[in-house]
Amino acid sequence: MSSFSHIDNKGCSRMVDITDKEPTLRSAVAQGVVSMKPSTFEMIHNDSIKKGNVLETAKIAGIMAAKKTSELIPLCHPINISHIDINFEPDKDESSIKIKTRVRLFGQTGVEMEALTAVSVAALTIYDMCKSQDKKMIISDICLLEKSGGKSGIFVRKTVND
Amino acid sequence: MSSFSHIDNKGCSRMVDITDKEPTLRSAVAQGVVSMKPSTFEMIHNDSIKKGNVLETAKIAGIMAAKKTSELIPLCHPINISHIDINFEPDKDESSIKIKTRVRLFGQTGVEMEALTAVSVAALTIYDMCKSQDKKMIISDICLLEKSGGKSGIFVRKTVND
Amino acid sequence: MSSFSHIDNKGCSRMVDITDKEPTLRSAVAQGVVSMKPSTFEMIHNDSIKKGNVLETAKIAGIMAAKKTSELIPLCHPINISHIDINFEPDKDESSIKIKTRVRLFGQTGVEMEALTAVSVAALTIYDMCKSQDKKMIISDICLLEKSGGKSGIFVRKTVND
Amino acid sequence: MSSFSHIDNKGCSRMVDITDKEPTLRSAVAQGVVSMKPSTFEMIHNDSIKKGNVLETAKIAGIMAAKKTSELIPLCHPINISHIDINFEPDKDESSIKIKTRVRLFGQTGVEMEALTAVSVAALTIYDMCKSQDKKMIISDICLLEKSGGKSGIFVRKTVND
Amino acid sequence: MSSFSHIDNKGCSRMVDITDKEPTLRSAVAQGVVSMKPSTFEMIHNDSIKKGNVLETAKIAGIMAAKKTSELIPLCHPINISHIDINFEPDKDESSIKIKTRVRLFGQTGVEMEALTAVSVAALTIYDMCKSQDKKMIISDICLLEKSGGKSGIFVRKTVND
Amino acid sequence: MSSFSHIDNKGCSRMVDITDKEPTLRSAVAQGVVSMKPSTFEMIHNDSIKKGNVLETAKIAGIMAAKKTSELIPLCHPINISHIDINFEPDKDESSIKIKTRVRLFGQTGVEMEALTAVSVAALTIYDMCKSQDKKMIISDICLLEKSGGKSGIFVRKTVND
Repeated sequence: MSSFSHIDNKGCSRMVDITDKEPTLRSAVAQGVVSMKPSTFEMIHNDSIKKGNVLETAKIAGIMAAKKTSELIPLCHPINISHIDINFEPDKDESSIKIKTRVRLFGQTGVEMEALTAVSVAALTIYDMCKSQDKKMIISDICLLEKSGGKSGIFVRKTVND
Repeated sequence: MSSFSHIDNKGCSRMVDITDKEPTLRSAVAQGVVSMKPSTFEMIHNDSIKKGNVLETAKIAGIMAAKKTSELIPLCHPINISHIDINFEPDKDESSIKIKTRVRLFGQTGVEMEALTAVSVAALTIYDMCKSQDKKMIISDICLLEKSGGKSGIFVRKTVND
Repeated sequence: MSSFSHIDNKGCSRMVDITDKEPTLRSAVAQGVVSMKPSTFEMIHNDSIKKGNVLETAKIAGIMAAKKTSELIPLCHPINISHIDINFEPDKDESSIKIKTRVRLFGQTGVEMEALTAVSVAALTIYDMCKSQDKKMIISDICLLEKSGGKSGIFVRKTVND
Repeated sequence: MSSFSHIDNKGCSRMVDITDKEPTLRSAVAQGVVSMKPSTFEMIHNDSIKKGNVLETAKIAGIMAAKKTSELIPLCHPINISHIDINFEPDKDESSIKIKTRVRLFGQTGVEMEALTAVSVAALTIYDMCKSQDKKMIISDICLLEKSGGKSGIFVRKTVND
Repeated sequence: MSSFSHIDNKGCSRMVDITDKEPTLRSAVAQGVVSMKPSTFEMIHNDSIKKGNVLETAKIAGIMAAKKTSELIPLCHPINISHIDINFEPDKDESSIKIKTRVRLFGQTGVEMEALTAVSVAALTIYDMCKSQDKKMIISDICLLEKSGGKSGIFVRKTVND
Repeated sequence: MSSFSHIDNKGCSRMVDITDKEPTLRSAVAQGVVSMKPSTFEMIHNDSIKKGNVLETAKIAGIMAAKKTSELIPLCHPINISHIDINFEPDKDESSIKIKTRVRLFGQTGVEMEALTAVSVAALTIYDMCKSQDKKMIISDICLLEKSGGKSGIFVRKTVND
């Protein structure tokens, strides 16, 4: 019935066809770490950064970015995430903040890119809000910690060093 | 139960109500043709256009545009396409490139606008990348070639002249 | 199985988890009123506003905004609305136009924010198109009139004074 | 030099041509009011709304929406606002929150639509965050309070009743 | 001062650097043609297409798409267009509608992609609104008719056959 | 002339007012590193990743994301970047790819967030394209390397360890 040829040029980008996949419950957890000067760490927790409430703004930015994932990542399927949670774990000794996100969906494709995008944009927002104070902040250790649902099964990693 | 009046003014735009439609497997194939000078055709295939890899960039632009269809076409329903494929068929004799797209979805409404939007934006991207070289390129023969799923049944057209 | 801690800081924003909710038929009706000078009201209905056809443009803006609701409202879930209808009820005596929107969806979450967003953006578009003529227009009485579907049951309100 | 005909059909929408306008300092102030039950007003100020910090989230939503104004309002010119400020004035006696926004720009066109859009989306966000608690909230009195810059001169209005 | 290496891999896409270009008055005119069945042509002009006012909706879609050009075309620079005009020239004998767009800007880069994008999306919107009636519509002859401003000087082409 | 009160609540987010800043030439260079399994590194460079040409797709995603920065980062000013360049420096020994971006603009505010956003989204795209092969990739060392223009003067950092 189709006049369409599937012979792609070698190496060309393509979107995976998920039309025939069974929907299942999908979940993904991702993390990332923002390292900064101790004085920046203090200012964030004292709410004295000039641009305002850093972690609350970063959380909202992360949530909104998760919803935009398929606009940012070219070959990602558009999906309607049904939940995202973003947590911050400050580490005073390391003068860093760990960002953790969890995304959930009942659907045909995984949500790890949504979880990773939320981490990245929350981290960039922390950078933006503190950059007049600390240009040397570093965003690191962005990785997937958990994934479940779909045929590749359950993936768990405790830390970035696993 | 409703206080809402359905009496539209004559001629006013409206979105079709698909709430009660049964989801079915939907597929659409569309095409378009970009005509250019022979020297432009050569440069695209030799990868010597100054702005870079023309067809790869056009493919990604087309995929991303398909995901944005309901933002561009006012009365289109938002949908989450589950597959899009974009192919290029160069015709050296005509000094033209045919773009073919196929979109798939299991859902309540057809995907022909997504296939046509992908063709159009892939063609515009080819124009953009080659325009410093060839302002007279023409985009033509954008049309639907196939459509299946939904109550209107199967539609097939071999070429623009059918 | 999860290393993720759900202990939010007090007062932090969060998106409600709808993953496990049963999809049902959802409907919402919202309204808003734009008040203006009698001469502006006349110009809208005589199609003599310099920027063009006011109500038709406002309707399209409202439809397109409804599709963007989850991009605008931070904690709204992304959904694919299956219908939106926008009506205008002019009131010559009050020199005002009432906007009514109805949104429908078979899904896991309500559509009242989509209906209210459509009202708001349609009203802002009326303002934009007439503002060179009438800077003192007022947008008021934006509220939810009906809501059905989901566990909170049926909500009906006849007017803003109910 | 142009083959283009400017003869529009009567009543068709059009964007004002600002190409030849002198850039000037532009400023606009807008307001809106969200009315609610006293218990909802209390919960917002005690930070005990389940969805989180209402006013902080509404402020960020309003700022982000101001940046999207030309995507929402069809005939608005795209501009790069150089400042937006959003304030909340709670009125315990009326059990309402007044939202005030100010937008600034050095440019060729006014910023009143950006100020009004920010008010509207901040108000909708308050509605969204409190709606499980109070479906009868009303958004009213959205209007322009001040405008300066451009040939139409200075506009000032103290309240919605002016 | 820079640690950054400009040695691109051969064939990689790149955005032209316009930072040091002098701003000039830019203008571009583009066209496209939508061909259809005579009965569809009649229905558009009688306002009896079920989805509503076809040309008014297509015009608004084209204006809004012009503002989104740099989101759609990967290597296009973001610009704030200061004017766009869209006209329709119906040809009853050919049962087709010619779309013409003009875009203006005082800036550092040309606006031909904005004019061509507006044509394409206006044409796709005509297709969308009439497709239940006529699946065989064809969009053709999309090309640049005029361009002025910038170092490449004035370009004029009367028709697609020039 | 203004009825607007600038007294923000303590800790509330706000956008910096850049209206009165002198435009200057702005430049920023940022970097990030994606670490992966040696077999993934090989597959990227052999063009045998199933989803297609990884680095070309990541470059386009990064360019498009830079243009969206102010939509993602809540308090970022919208700007029209006039150049972005993205380079990849593969390190076979470390089995990692360093991403470097440079953004330029003549304007009123810095472009470091655009450079950092481009790095982050290019890195996420590499992750997305290789994730079926390697779920344990890590994105690290995202930081600003250079910044010039504006009153804070020139900032240079050779590596993440500076």
